[in-house]
Amino acid sequence: MTNAMLEQGRTVLAEQGFSRLLGTELTDYAPGRAELSLVLRPDHRQQHGFAHGGVIAYLADNALTYAGASALGTGVLTLEMKINYTRPGLGERLIARAEVLSSGRRQAVCQCKVVALQDGTEKLVAVAQGTIVPASV
Amino acid sequence: MTNAMLEQGRTVLAEQGFSRLLGTELTDYAPGRAELSLVLRPDHRQQHGFAHGGVIAYLADNALTYAGASALGTGVLTLEMKINYTRPGLGERLIARAEVLSSGRRQAVCQCKVVALQDGTEKLVAVAQGTIVPASV
Amino acid sequence: MTNAMLEQGRTVLAEQGFSRLLGTELTDYAPGRAELSLVLRPDHRQQHGFAHGGVIAYLADNALTYAGASALGTGVLTLEMKINYTRPGLGERLIARAEVLSSGRRQAVCQCKVVALQDGTEKLVAVAQGTIVPASV
Amino acid sequence: MTNAMLEQGRTVLAEQGFSRLLGTELTDYAPGRAELSLVLRPDHRQQHGFAHGGVIAYLADNALTYAGASALGTGVLTLEMKINYTRPGLGERLIARAEVLSSGRRQAVCQCKVVALQDGTEKLVAVAQGTIVPASV
Repeated sequence: MTNAMLEQGRTVLAEQGFSRLLGTELTDYAPGRAELSLVLRPDHRQQHGFAHGGVIAYLADNALTYAGASALGTGVLTLEMKINYTRPGLGERLIARAEVLSSGRRQAVCQCKVVALQDGTEKLVAVAQGTIVPASV
Repeated sequence: MTNAMLEQGRTVLAEQGFSRLLGTELTDYAPGRAELSLVLRPDHRQQHGFAHGGVIAYLADNALTYAGASALGTGVLTLEMKINYTRPGLGERLIARAEVLSSGRRQAVCQCKVVALQDGTEKLVAVAQGTIVPASV
Repeated sequence: MTNAMLEQGRTVLAEQGFSRLLGTELTDYAPGRAELSLVLRPDHRQQHGFAHGGVIAYLADNALTYAGASALGTGVLTLEMKINYTRPGLGERLIARAEVLSSGRRQAVCQCKVVALQDGTEKLVAVAQGTIVPASV
Repeated sequence: MTNAMLEQGRTVLAEQGFSRLLGTELTDYAPGRAELSLVLRPDHRQQHGFAHGGVIAYLADNALTYAGASALGTGVLTLEMKINYTRPGLGERLIARAEVLSSGRRQAVCQCKVVALQDGTEKLVAVAQGTIVPASV
């Protein structure tokens, strides 16, 4: 069962051509947190067969933005983000879970952990931190 | 006319399923620098019609990695990167230009500027900084 | 009561001229985590009377390094870090709590939250994320 | 000879207790750029005799803020910054040179290079990137 917030978030995601191209799903969306997920396909890979860092960065960036929007309202911008890659992205699925660490009138600072799901086990592949701001002040 | 280094870089890029999916081209590759570029398509966009931050982050990440590889050798990993978005990505093409700021035995620290080309004018849309390391020590 | 690891960490801290200058104390140090703290003095301030961002960045940087060292061994380097300031640093004391998010043979990725203690209440003033590596490979 | 902008910047610096404690000087300040410098003393060091990462982070943070202020006006906040350490800080003096990469109504994105001056030679010890915003909107 889904709620109104999750439905609204999925409507926005469906309007992102890039997210449709990658097959991204919004699997959780609530005040202070968001979870995005995608099934890893051959066209998500780099030359060694791992998920391309850019796919992981995209998923983290998008999850951070959703988490920030959940705290600030829907009209937001991602000002910046930083990502550390901790392990090659290998498996059936990538899942990015973002949460709000701090939120005020002017910004939300969010953190995101990206895991790869392989044979039923989740392994951390990246950690990101970023700043989300209202789209207009 | 292209040189051997650029050809080798293009061969690697052609092996990245994700880069083929996005239509990325390697337009410059030399010791200490790399330039990647892609034609903006509807499926690169977010819900407001701008290039998705994830596309920009992907291009910056990949250009940083190429620049680092040019200094360290081809077997490299991107350990982390940070990106600031400075302007919405709007136009015909995104171009990411990365350069090596510092390089040693253990790491290369690189910077990347991403511009959007619109009606013949380049505008800065993002600045990134990241750490590239040899794939094995 | 203190343990051997905390004692060893305090010995190292006492050898840091800069930490002595600022009055930093190591208040917790165990596998996977570290806590550093200092009493805020007038000479820690910037022009508006808040803790200088540089004091907060120093404390976060040092706590990240300790956390990384707890996972990797004592001979470590901080390769890089990123810090988001979430609120002005106001109060009697700054406390930086760092933990290891991921650790392997080559790196530890750590996170740090810095709080200001004012009238018995902790408020988050910064969040940092960084990469710690062994000093020699 | 100094100009009015440099004088104003030095007045602000003199009001920062922490900058007085560390002996920081503002050696250049003009639209789009700032340079801060300090003589390395034993109480700036970590346990191996190098400049403490926190001193370098402080100097970069402060130079980024000055550069941002030169573009946005004097009432600014540093929202976040990221620093890569490229070499141990060894020598007589640290110099941080920051410049504005992009500036608008809402933010200035700045870069800073920190060098150590040793026997007349400058060596890059860190590169930082950060976001400066107006103090109130």
